[in-house]
Amino acid sequence: MKPLPPPPALTRRGLVRAAAGLAAAGAALAGKGVAGAAVEPAAAPSAAGDNKAAVEPFWGEHQSGIITPIQNYSYFAALDLDTAKRDELIEMLRVWTATAARLAAGKTAAPLGTDVSTVGADTGEALGLPPARLTLTFGFGPGLFVANGKDRFGLAARRPAALVDLPVFNGDQLIPEKTGGDLSVQACADDPQVAFHAVRQLARLAYPIAKIRWVQAGYTTRPQDGGTPRNLMGLKDGTSNPAVSDPKAMAQLVWVGAEGPNWMRGGSYVVVRRIRVALEHWDRMNIAFQEQTIGRHKYSGAPLGGKGEFDTLNLAANDKDGNPIIPESAHVRLAAAASNGGAQILRRPYSYNDGANFVAERWPPWRQGIEYDAGLLFICYQRDPRTGFIKIFENMSKFDMLNQFVTHTGGGLFACPPGIQPGGFIGQRLFEPG
Amino acid sequence: MKPLPPPPALTRRGLVRAAAGLAAAGAALAGKGVAGAAVEPAAAPSAAGDNKAAVEPFWGEHQSGIITPIQNYSYFAALDLDTAKRDELIEMLRVWTATAARLAAGKTAAPLGTDVSTVGADTGEALGLPPARLTLTFGFGPGLFVANGKDRFGLAARRPAALVDLPVFNGDQLIPEKTGGDLSVQACADDPQVAFHAVRQLARLAYPIAKIRWVQAGYTTRPQDGGTPRNLMGLKDGTSNPAVSDPKAMAQLVWVGAEGPNWMRGGSYVVVRRIRVALEHWDRMNIAFQEQTIGRHKYSGAPLGGKGEFDTLNLAANDKDGNPIIPESAHVRLAAAASNGGAQILRRPYSYNDGANFVAERWPPWRQGIEYDAGLLFICYQRDPRTGFIKIFENMSKFDMLNQFVTHTGGGLFACPPGIQPGGFIGQRLFEPG
Repeated sequence: MKPLPPPPALTRRGLVRAAAGLAAAGAALAGKGVAGAAVEPAAAPSAAGDNKAAVEPFWGEHQSGIITPIQNYSYFAALDLDTAKRDELIEMLRVWTATAARLAAGKTAAPLGTDVSTVGADTGEALGLPPARLTLTFGFGPGLFVANGKDRFGLAARRPAALVDLPVFNGDQLIPEKTGGDLSVQACADDPQVAFHAVRQLARLAYPIAKIRWVQAGYTTRPQDGGTPRNLMGLKDGTSNPAVSDPKAMAQLVWVGAEGPNWMRGGSYVVVRRIRVALEHWDRMNIAFQEQTIGRHKYSGAPLGGKGEFDTLNLAANDKDGNPIIPESAHVRLAAAASNGGAQILRRPYSYNDGANFVAERWPPWRQGIEYDAGLLFICYQRDPRTGFIKIFENMSKFDMLNQFVTHTGGGLFACPPGIQPGGFIGQRLFEPG
Repeated sequence: MKPLPPPPALTRRGLVRAAAGLAAAGAALAGKGVAGAAVEPAAAPSAAGDNKAAVEPFWGEHQSGIITPIQNYSYFAALDLDTAKRDELIEMLRVWTATAARLAAGKTAAPLGTDVSTVGADTGEALGLPPARLTLTFGFGPGLFVANGKDRFGLAARRPAALVDLPVFNGDQLIPEKTGGDLSVQACADDPQVAFHAVRQLARLAYPIAKIRWVQAGYTTRPQDGGTPRNLMGLKDGTSNPAVSDPKAMAQLVWVGAEGPNWMRGGSYVVVRRIRVALEHWDRMNIAFQEQTIGRHKYSGAPLGGKGEFDTLNLAANDKDGNPIIPESAHVRLAAAASNGGAQILRRPYSYNDGANFVAERWPPWRQGIEYDAGLLFICYQRDPRTGFIKIFENMSKFDMLNQFVTHTGGGLFACPPGIQPGGFIGQRLFEPG
């Protein structure tokens, strides 16, 4: 029988106490590796044949949730740090690591115990739910290094050159309350309650050292035939994504190599954008116009001029009048590696769907009214955002025909450190000499 | 080969044209009954063994989505009518009926056709997705009968006595933009994209006769063992719900009988409440306090004093000091039929999860900050709201200990007419003499 857990952190002192308890739990777990998780029953036993019972490994060379095959749900959280103490930050990261390893294994945040006179070790809403392939991916925003010109944790000199402040792009309408953050947590799972539950445990344990700044839920649903999912514009989304199963491509495009600081090698950079789509406007366009805008056929996903979804984009092909078959401002042309000096990113595309609210559209016919607040939770990973998202989007933000239907309303850029082995904690090398 | 569909409604004249086309499609479908749907391939072929391939019947004595076993996702929409013409309203209901029957069968809103010079007959995001047990349940709000004191459609005299204006309850903080509406559409499905897609097609076809007023998405996830789902408070939700498989109970509690107007017999009344829960506050309470608040044990769901989830609530039991084991203000006591003269409702409980935003809590310690905008999408059906939700909640809204964690921020009351047979349209008897 393990000792009962301390109550979750309600004060700064509480955090440190919780950290001690959880770190012990983490160390116990760590000593046994992932397989050791089985000595304590998971919250939900795996049901044979149920896909949701699958577990994604938490420990490893890279963080999970980056090249992990996409799960159906995502809950992305950005938090701000409200401490000046490096030790508190490190303790928090230790607690997060130990807790995340438990959660990914389908367990509660800490053992539940039987003492009802204390705050629960877990909030309980995922009891009985399967692990659902939960992954938790952590990132560090620019504010971890320098905030308001201050080197708050003695880390300023270790800020990677690639962790730039994102430039202001053409058309940006970023809402401050949905933008930025010192830390990021991307939870992905095949169950929406499992994803939210994970972020909730981490946020609860971090409070008040770190506080949630913004969150965004997303989903994607895979067709029955295993084909490419469609986004809310009715378009197949992800056709030309690099293959996560191709280690060479991932090493080239996604993982930080020798060019980065030691603490980031094997890590990656995530750019998140909350992209509202004027669905009502889009739905009024005829199909041919939608296809010209994108550069692909709507139903098949084939490039204009092609027949199959995975046909090569022929950007040089002209029609009989000498006009390009894929228009100059079509989305796929501007996004293509060939149009961006070979630049490529790994997208992890989700839709978001936040209900409806009043909006004034920015394009003719300038409709005003209650419209869906829905669109893309655009998440992408890359080795260097300067030669990835920023390079590609600088051009697209100016010329993409799709811009008349989309508005970027929030997001951020975070440095996701490499994965860790049992006993370590997320971002550990950032805090070590060398 | 069927004729190509007309473009979806963009103008009032367009609506009527679309209606003609869809009504023809509906009639064709109707002639064959549900089985006839097979003559035109559904959007996604059923995959053997995949639960999501299941179809819920659209036609019948009652509307589906009321006693249909609960699906994992809901997208609830309230719309306002922007017409004074009874014929336009009827045409819209005909279009909705024909379209809903197609969608429930896993088809597109109308046959897609091949002409890309027109607006799509369907927005496309559910192509390849399974029927996912989609149900669409329609309701009529008070505004359909009288709006601003005006009998807009000659229906004022037919307003059922049970379709009251909901009273203002103790603690209500209803946001006008999330409250009321002339019409309601509850889409439920085992896939979130299928549920949203259905509402989007109906809203698109109704525009501008009817316009969306508010929408709310929700979800519930069933434990692996088939047990009662837990809500975001970590509590099993639905333990004491009447059994939808019990026709006698449903006839007594849910379906309007001879006491109602002819056009509502076999129908039901839905009350929807968007209930924000101060999850951060709740999470700080010790488990014993949470259990006293609810009147059940958190993990097992057993009533206080009991052992199993389905043990009878013993409201008369006292402890050795003579105090009630289930406190006087415990949620389950105040909600129990025995505390409300036998009143019972059929709940269809979903959680909602709309991200996070700034809020000032109403109870100690009056925390202010960014908190989850999450809680319950509370949906309940009943034969008469005056002896159902209103009777039960009048008392609960004053005395329920849970009130310090919850705030009702929106919702509505809608009369859901009975189901229809092929060839009919939703609410048809309301528009016919007698």
